[in-house]
Amino acid sequence: MLLRKPALDPQTVPAISRSSYPEPYRARVLPREVRRLGEALGLTRIGVNVATLLPGKESSMRHWHTHEDELVYLLEGELVLVTDAGERALRAGQCAGFPAGHRDGHQLVNRGTSPAVYLEISNRDAADGAQYPDVDLVWNAPENPGAYSHKDGRKY
Amino acid sequence: MLLRKPALDPQTVPAISRSSYPEPYRARVLPREVRRLGEALGLTRIGVNVATLLPGKESSMRHWHTHEDELVYLLEGELVLVTDAGERALRAGQCAGFPAGHRDGHQLVNRGTSPAVYLEISNRDAADGAQYPDVDLVWNAPENPGAYSHKDGRKY
Repeated sequence: MLLRKPALDPQTVPAISRSSYPEPYRARVLPREVRRLGEALGLTRIGVNVATLLPGKESSMRHWHTHEDELVYLLEGELVLVTDAGERALRAGQCAGFPAGHRDGHQLVNRGTSPAVYLEISNRDAADGAQYPDVDLVWNAPENPGAYSHKDGRKY
Repeated sequence: MLLRKPALDPQTVPAISRSSYPEPYRARVLPREVRRLGEALGLTRIGVNVATLLPGKESSMRHWHTHEDELVYLLEGELVLVTDAGERALRAGQCAGFPAGHRDGHQLVNRGTSPAVYLEISNRDAADGAQYPDVDLVWNAPENPGAYSHKDGRKY
């Protein structure tokens, strides 16, 4: 069913399989399906995506945001949440949250055999940056705004 | 299952049945169950609640926000979305969005016989106000901050 704004059926929003990560990180997250629900509904102050994560894939490298709160709500399937506390399973109907500036990197990993579907929710802040404790990545470093850098500041 | 932060099972978050609406509006929205997931996870820049709306109840009076984007994602059941465009049914898995400052009031109404469960998502902005086109309510008017007023400015 096609619903006109302000309502929509997520399946009518095009699925995007893109990442601005450099390799070898890009191959760890792609292919994937991300549908930008908030954007499709004209929202600019929050981002709300529905993402499908395939078996063996990671939602991102483990990271934390400087200016954006993030919440994930698992709709279907099972995922592993990785943080400084280690690994824990998340089932459909469970959620996890990551306050801006809290220096504990997180990622979701699909270690199962079925796709997992989740909502990823955040505020949107142009000042936001991301730090990656496990890999040589920084997002939106002062010397390289709007892009990924090595930790020593060099551009990718 | 009790999960420690940063993850949680929404059922472990206390359900709140409160409204700061004056009567007769309060009785149109209560009782209800609202679980503040974002708050329970330490988030301050976004609000993410899971709400259960009982048959016959309304999510709110029809309103629009001045500074907060809002998105609702229906998890279970069926609701009617009311906007200036009229009424339309929303089923589980569908969503709707309301950009800050867009002067088209919205509300959800449960006209069915089963509870409906949905996520309500927004950024959080202390400057936010709400306007109610159908009833004599204003939220956070300059002359009465942090409270509901009549449209002529008198406090409730």
